[in-house]
Amino acid sequence: MPAGSDPPDAAALLFRRATRDDLPAIVAMLADDPLGARRESDTSPLPRCYHDAFDAIDRDPNIELVVAQAGAGGALGALGIVGVLQLSFIPNLSHRGGWRALIEGVRVAAAHRCGGVGRQMLQWAIERARQRGCLMVQLTSDKSRTDAIRFYEGLGFVASHEGMKLHLSRGEGDHG
Amino acid sequence: MPAGSDPPDAAALLFRRATRDDLPAIVAMLADDPLGARRESDTSPLPRCYHDAFDAIDRDPNIELVVAQAGAGGALGALGIVGVLQLSFIPNLSHRGGWRALIEGVRVAAAHRCGGVGRQMLQWAIERARQRGCLMVQLTSDKSRTDAIRFYEGLGFVASHEGMKLHLSRGEGDHG
Repeated sequence: MPAGSDPPDAAALLFRRATRDDLPAIVAMLADDPLGARRESDTSPLPRCYHDAFDAIDRDPNIELVVAQAGAGGALGALGIVGVLQLSFIPNLSHRGGWRALIEGVRVAAAHRCGGVGRQMLQWAIERARQRGCLMVQLTSDKSRTDAIRFYEGLGFVASHEGMKLHLSRGEGDHG
Repeated sequence: MPAGSDPPDAAALLFRRATRDDLPAIVAMLADDPLGARRESDTSPLPRCYHDAFDAIDRDPNIELVVAQAGAGGALGALGIVGVLQLSFIPNLSHRGGWRALIEGVRVAAAHRCGGVGRQMLQWAIERARQRGCLMVQLTSDKSRTDAIRFYEGLGFVASHEGMKLHLSRGEGDHG
């Protein structure tokens, strides 16, 4: 993995699947964000909704919730979680049946932003998508996150599409 | 489902999960499109890649490949496939564990465009996302498809995000 321009701390990152014990740290990262602060509930104990979502993610073989962890001995300190992202691998008929990887929920802990952690996380995710045989990696980024958009462009992403969202009210649906 | 402004043919649509027998009609729709023509292979028999993708879609309980079919007796003729879309239901931790529905591969057969078919398909998909308990419906649309973007906006979608894509070369990955 190219790390020549990364600071030394990012070079010490480990990537692994998230476990339930990581949930408080993950939700804290989701909430510690200008947009996330308005919509998450970072209480202790965590609301049950996060556990339910974790269960659904954990049992889906095509979804990987991944945490970046500072390796022992690195400048980031021992074994703290410094970032999270979710990868969904989606089969599609289009592009001659090309699988896609959808990246969502990318967050880096506040103390570790701008230190190359996000870059190494995305490079890891792109490589993971390649291992899974994906033809494309895709994500959407809120247009107000101009730094994030530049960051993704720097990694080779092209803002070729409009990312369109329709919010539904929370109902009584069936998660199937 | 509101259909007051739809022409009579759209009112006769039936929606159902796609079967393998539908594959040639679906791939023909994917190929009959300014962008799709450059990347699909609408040959007979169909290349194996489409069958492999269909298998992966069909065995995933969180993905639904849906065809719109003209009902017998409707102005569209008897039981032809006039549209296709793919719905993926994705659990997420963010938004308090809100599930999202991702819509991809929306196509309407050329002879039936501009007749309200696409609108009824999207309305169906949004209702299906609601049934599955989703908090959000999302899709990306190539910025060159300006008519499509206006169409989605008319259905309530907001182009709040950049839709960013990174193409990978076709490799030797593992579809897991």
